[in-house]
Amino acid sequence: MFSVCRLAAAKIIDGVALAKEIKDEVKLEIDQLVAAGGRHPMLTVVLVGEDPASQTYIKNKMKACTYTGIESRSIFLPAETTESELLKTIDDLNNDDSVDGILVQLPVPDHITERKVCNAVAPHKDVDGFNVINVGRFCSDQMTFIPATPAGVMEMIRRTGIETFGKNAVVCGRSKNVGMPLAMLLHADGKYETNAGDATTTICHRYTPPEQLPVFTKTADIVVVATGIPKLITADIIKEGATIIDVGINRIKDEKTGKTKLVGDVDFEEVSKKAGYITPVPGGVGPMTVAMLTKNTLMAYKKEINFD
Amino acid sequence: MFSVCRLAAAKIIDGVALAKEIKDEVKLEIDQLVAAGGRHPMLTVVLVGEDPASQTYIKNKMKACTYTGIESRSIFLPAETTESELLKTIDDLNNDDSVDGILVQLPVPDHITERKVCNAVAPHKDVDGFNVINVGRFCSDQMTFIPATPAGVMEMIRRTGIETFGKNAVVCGRSKNVGMPLAMLLHADGKYETNAGDATTTICHRYTPPEQLPVFTKTADIVVVATGIPKLITADIIKEGATIIDVGINRIKDEKTGKTKLVGDVDFEEVSKKAGYITPVPGGVGPMTVAMLTKNTLMAYKKEINFD
Repeated sequence: MFSVCRLAAAKIIDGVALAKEIKDEVKLEIDQLVAAGGRHPMLTVVLVGEDPASQTYIKNKMKACTYTGIESRSIFLPAETTESELLKTIDDLNNDDSVDGILVQLPVPDHITERKVCNAVAPHKDVDGFNVINVGRFCSDQMTFIPATPAGVMEMIRRTGIETFGKNAVVCGRSKNVGMPLAMLLHADGKYETNAGDATTTICHRYTPPEQLPVFTKTADIVVVATGIPKLITADIIKEGATIIDVGINRIKDEKTGKTKLVGDVDFEEVSKKAGYITPVPGGVGPMTVAMLTKNTLMAYKKEINFD
Repeated sequence: MFSVCRLAAAKIIDGVALAKEIKDEVKLEIDQLVAAGGRHPMLTVVLVGEDPASQTYIKNKMKACTYTGIESRSIFLPAETTESELLKTIDDLNNDDSVDGILVQLPVPDHITERKVCNAVAPHKDVDGFNVINVGRFCSDQMTFIPATPAGVMEMIRRTGIETFGKNAVVCGRSKNVGMPLAMLLHADGKYETNAGDATTTICHRYTPPEQLPVFTKTADIVVVATGIPKLITADIIKEGATIIDVGINRIKDEKTGKTKLVGDVDFEEVSKKAGYITPVPGGVGPMTVAMLTKNTLMAYKKEINFD
């Protein structure tokens, strides 16, 4: 009867609302540019093959483009397209002045080298930030197109008012399009062009021994998890009041209903009772990724980045 | 009388001996290539201005070149050289087929943009690994010229037989030519071309609160420190048996003799009683840096990296 009962629940970061906020800002700026006589920005998405998940992603991206006033176009190429045919398509888009942003939806079929395709997209149209020149610029703290998912995570943290400076951050997962750039954004120097976080940052990954992971997550003020492992982050391994950002998207079978449902890498139900801030899945990082793509496309249109 | 008295001292990693081992391998290979009718590899170093430290570094690099059979040439330009004059010099070297490796000794004078200079060096001759394309390749786990100091640190770890896989590593310092690439080499996937370490890796830096640094260093199996702060790493904040790699080079006044002496960032005297392995300063990482430069120059000569 005399114990203090803690019922505080985490504040849920609403990715849908934040994404709308960003898209509205992009839309407003495009409206003004168009009202001033400019043309609409233009994004071209290229898909090779018929991967259904890719088709869904593209549809969501197109929808966000329409909303913000970005003209969008998709080029669907058959699965048997050769690498050189794809490179030719990209080259044509590079040379087409009406195209501001180019995005080749990954994965590409096995007979095509992904790295070659990413590098073929002209750096100033590379809204995904996967061209090696943009990776190098980013890792050198130079302004560039930051891949949309890590950029979206940082934007969530910033807009929610969560402090990163001097804090402890843990990134679980070291993929080149999410984990690695996140670690870069969290640890690097905030005074340079990438507006990084100045946090002490730990990168955990598949070879972090299971008994070691909690050593790091328990010290963390911010945990970002992008591993594809449902319930990797449980309440017992986080610090009370920490910020938990869940990048995972896993389709699992709901034991009660037997239906497939979408979950992240965090045990949301339990962790949300202990964390300070938490993102849901769906409705967290996902919508932010799409919103950041419209922002990158607007940047490409405005030629804001100096590639000299 | 019944207490166990621990007198174990750390094994000191002899950077001079390891560097000689590497240079001897480079020399042997060059001897064979030349015996088979090849020309000698050729490194050109460019220095703008008369910074005495830079001159010493260049002298050491030249000496290692001579030892290994690499022809070397220095171009000394006056401090008032304009940026475009320097870029023209680099361009000439890029187009000179007799030059395999180009190194612009940093820092350049303030009126010259360092980033522009680094990017001007052709990627396939960029033995320092500072061109943005090489930074991007490296951070994407692609084979490339890895900057000589972090490459030297990893080589020390490997040749000493220190395990990194699944271990905890802490990097103190986040500079783009040492700390950041070290964090990349330590954490990334060993199955790719950079032969990275698969360690759980924490990046600490100037904004890591002083009371937080020990939290991480005490868990670390490997600590690499590159901060320019003498005695940042003391015996009380490391784990017994850990590997301590000291990249720091600080000139301080010896309190006893009044003379200037060279020290690292580690309290060597005390830490060496507790660590498992430790590198001295001088004679640790420094010689490794120079040795790795000869290795990179040989790679450039052999055109081992596919930049397509």
